[in-house]
Amino acid sequence: MDPLFLIGFPASGKTTVGRRLAARLSRRFIDLDDVIEEETGETPAALVGRSEPRFRKIEAAALRHILDEAGRFPEGIVVATGGGAAAHGDNLARMRQAGLVVTLAIDPKLAVERAGDVAARPLLARPWSGIVELAERRQPFYRQAHAVVDASLPVEQVVSAVAALATRYQALGPARRDAVLVGLGERTYPITLAASLEGALGHVRPAGRVVIITDDQVAPLWLGPLRAALGDAHAHAPVCVVPAGEGAKCFAQYQALCEALLGHGVDRDTTVVALGGGVVGDLAGFVAATVLRGLPILQVPTTLVAMTDSAIGGKTAIDTPAGKNLVGAFWQPSAVAAALDTLTTLPARQRRAGFGELWKYALLDGEAMWEAVWECAPWALQGGEAPPELIDVIRRAAAYKAQVVVQDERETAGLRVLLNLGHTLGHAIETASAGELLHGEAVALGLVAACRVSHHLTGAGCAPELEGRVVEALARTGLSADFEPYLDEKAWDALSLDKKRVTGGVRFVAIREVGRCLPITVDLTELRRILRPSATV
Amino acid sequence: MDPLFLIGFPASGKTTVGRRLAARLSRRFIDLDDVIEEETGETPAALVGRSEPRFRKIEAAALRHILDEAGRFPEGIVVATGGGAAAHGDNLARMRQAGLVVTLAIDPKLAVERAGDVAARPLLARPWSGIVELAERRQPFYRQAHAVVDASLPVEQVVSAVAALATRYQALGPARRDAVLVGLGERTYPITLAASLEGALGHVRPAGRVVIITDDQVAPLWLGPLRAALGDAHAHAPVCVVPAGEGAKCFAQYQALCEALLGHGVDRDTTVVALGGGVVGDLAGFVAATVLRGLPILQVPTTLVAMTDSAIGGKTAIDTPAGKNLVGAFWQPSAVAAALDTLTTLPARQRRAGFGELWKYALLDGEAMWEAVWECAPWALQGGEAPPELIDVIRRAAAYKAQVVVQDERETAGLRVLLNLGHTLGHAIETASAGELLHGEAVALGLVAACRVSHHLTGAGCAPELEGRVVEALARTGLSADFEPYLDEKAWDALSLDKKRVTGGVRFVAIREVGRCLPITVDLTELRRILRPSATV
Repeated sequence: MDPLFLIGFPASGKTTVGRRLAARLSRRFIDLDDVIEEETGETPAALVGRSEPRFRKIEAAALRHILDEAGRFPEGIVVATGGGAAAHGDNLARMRQAGLVVTLAIDPKLAVERAGDVAARPLLARPWSGIVELAERRQPFYRQAHAVVDASLPVEQVVSAVAALATRYQALGPARRDAVLVGLGERTYPITLAASLEGALGHVRPAGRVVIITDDQVAPLWLGPLRAALGDAHAHAPVCVVPAGEGAKCFAQYQALCEALLGHGVDRDTTVVALGGGVVGDLAGFVAATVLRGLPILQVPTTLVAMTDSAIGGKTAIDTPAGKNLVGAFWQPSAVAAALDTLTTLPARQRRAGFGELWKYALLDGEAMWEAVWECAPWALQGGEAPPELIDVIRRAAAYKAQVVVQDERETAGLRVLLNLGHTLGHAIETASAGELLHGEAVALGLVAACRVSHHLTGAGCAPELEGRVVEALARTGLSADFEPYLDEKAWDALSLDKKRVTGGVRFVAIREVGRCLPITVDLTELRRILRPSATV
Repeated sequence: MDPLFLIGFPASGKTTVGRRLAARLSRRFIDLDDVIEEETGETPAALVGRSEPRFRKIEAAALRHILDEAGRFPEGIVVATGGGAAAHGDNLARMRQAGLVVTLAIDPKLAVERAGDVAARPLLARPWSGIVELAERRQPFYRQAHAVVDASLPVEQVVSAVAALATRYQALGPARRDAVLVGLGERTYPITLAASLEGALGHVRPAGRVVIITDDQVAPLWLGPLRAALGDAHAHAPVCVVPAGEGAKCFAQYQALCEALLGHGVDRDTTVVALGGGVVGDLAGFVAATVLRGLPILQVPTTLVAMTDSAIGGKTAIDTPAGKNLVGAFWQPSAVAAALDTLTTLPARQRRAGFGELWKYALLDGEAMWEAVWECAPWALQGGEAPPELIDVIRRAAAYKAQVVVQDERETAGLRVLLNLGHTLGHAIETASAGELLHGEAVALGLVAACRVSHHLTGAGCAPELEGRVVEALARTGLSADFEPYLDEKAWDALSLDKKRVTGGVRFVAIREVGRCLPITVDLTELRRILRPSATV
């Protein structure tokens, strides 16, 4: 039984949840702060008050001590850490290596409310702006956990959610270290990342029957390896092949697939396996969501965009003449299994386009991820075997997405809107290009436009240098930054009709700096003035 | 603020939940047992121990006292009653008249576990068989509450669920007394029952925009009154009309409706209004579940079957060549508004067929509902204005359905299977008749067959007289009981292919007596031996 670590902002409930969780799982509970106090005879608050750097050293040593001694508790341990433990030194890496790390996510405002008397929590004893700044600095670390749980829920629900994560995690076998888990209570599911399909699918093979849905470009390359990875039990699993490309996300294919599955005699224990990119995932997901009112689906994404975005979070859909993704359902998969292998056969242009979404995640997540994407950039241009660092990049992106999904599953809390960074303009440009641009290419252009808009808008506080930095990054992955030729009247019309339209303008994600983005509403005329000064009447 | 009454089996948590709920809603908490103790100087346990009849009189007087004094607490009151209060005298009727009555539903097994020391709970101090018998006797009363909440959940969740019910109930205005509420936490919704559409829709009119879906038989009769009842704000709401009949539940109509809605520029705040019977409700429900990944839907059922069954519980679907209802989604409505008025225009045969499902509910629910259906039987034959008693019958059936939905929303707990009483054979007969029989007519035949099977099966303990009683009841509502001519080889084949097939036979709901049914698995050969002795090889 691997150790379980709870990390998160001060007052997120790590000790309370940890104690109850340990009781529920019959494990030993250890509070890192207690260990520190025992070893030094002083409270962490007192130690921090005197010297935070010195406290961090003591804290790291105490954590090392706990890890060394973990073997003494065969029943397993639950460790509640201090709010800063995960953000200093290699504590986080060591915890991830040793066991399951779960973040209790909480809005800083709620944290301050809950904390009450801040005397015992010296890190919260600062002005509000300082607390926000602290939270923003810590987020990228907290997002590195295996899973994030919404800690604003009642304690018992948080405990149940973490317990569900622990069960799911332990069942993943060797794939668990690199896995991300989407913590949705009973519907919790893992995202496994491995070099091969064999490794990614190892411990998430469906128990019941299986029907595979894929497209005619992926099938010749990866259907064989998928079958091998699924194992002998599924050697004769039926396969439905759709034509590659966005055109497959239509009513006709949807109907044909539903009828094909029913023809294969599926029952509610049959798992749909979606092998392919975003199109296959969205289409197969909608089929799985609705045949017999819902079958389990295992997503096996074979593109960067699918691995980091579309296969995660349960948004499924088909297109209609009125627009993309307008008919569908929220339907979470039972697992997502991503194999780096499958990226080697991506056409060069699609491989590069995938970096559009990765740069988006880097801008959202922060400098560490930016750095990681930067390291993988040569592969975008040259292809060949995927660099091992790419697993880290995909994991970070998947973790970002998972965290948003957990806190805003059905797009009602406004958090999921951050994922639209670069998409307001990107989507309009993509629509107007009528298939000329790939989605990731359009998003890349949208990111540059977002920099420019963010710089010009009073208050957003975006440095003018950021646009140059983004342009350079895109170039490093073979992506064009020159959005102006695409931002024609057609694109402008598409923007006016977009779903993101709200009273007073259009929803837009502004960038302050790498790792600090925020949703705003922008007036269309203002947007036009900034982006197409020459065309303004 | 109407008083709120908690009823339910001993140890279902009425006092604990009531106390916390009162704190949460800032209301006064009153424990009926405390009032009794205060007024008599003795504990209810002691009083029951001496003479239960005398205790029931004291209890009724104490309840009357509370009702008389309720006006003294302008902040409102939450009353926890004793386990038997709702099942004696006219207590339940008086509580329903005065305010919101909520049942905390609990499995007797869990109740005994929770009770611990039964000394304080004299009604649980009896052998297990006696407890089951007590629970079965009480159920029909508990089901008469406005709403049922699953009390096996953690206390905080139960409190939240009841709080959500209180808010929704209070907002229903004059329709609240006769309403049933489906207690699903944040997705809690009301079923309003009134003489007219005006009354039923009074307080459940959608706030945002509206699109109406109906069929070409209902539209000429009820579209006008619906528009009037929806009010001026929706005077120009677009309408989509599909052809009447099961044929409309197909992919083509589904696609056409999705595209029509998108053509009308729906957004996530647009409510779909489904005006019609089961076909319109199922089809419009599936459209609402999937357009923009989910729009609110207001069900306005215009048939007995839709009012008591299909419009409640969120099962939506279309048919495919492989069978009925094979593609769809679970999607709960935002409200169900049923007007007795609309039943007056039902064709005579459909009106009678509706009683097939009503007799089913009577067999499930118990003698009181049986009696109520019996009283309405003349209307089944003669038609004309619906008798006011029909509201009571529909309310009881809707409450039965609501209670099952609350405890087994997605058909995973096995509880929802009880609703299949009469449907194992009924469904096979309906399929084999290829449209000759209406659904309710086939269910009626299935009920007779269920009686015969239940009588013959060892252990089910069904008296032979029950079949005669059911035949007589069906005749009183113009329904045939002669299933044998329909149970041909075609029906037998349909049964063999049914979704209800499981290893070892077919799922079947057996009847012990009126109000006591239980799901069992029956061997197909055995079934054939009982029902078609002459045809057995």
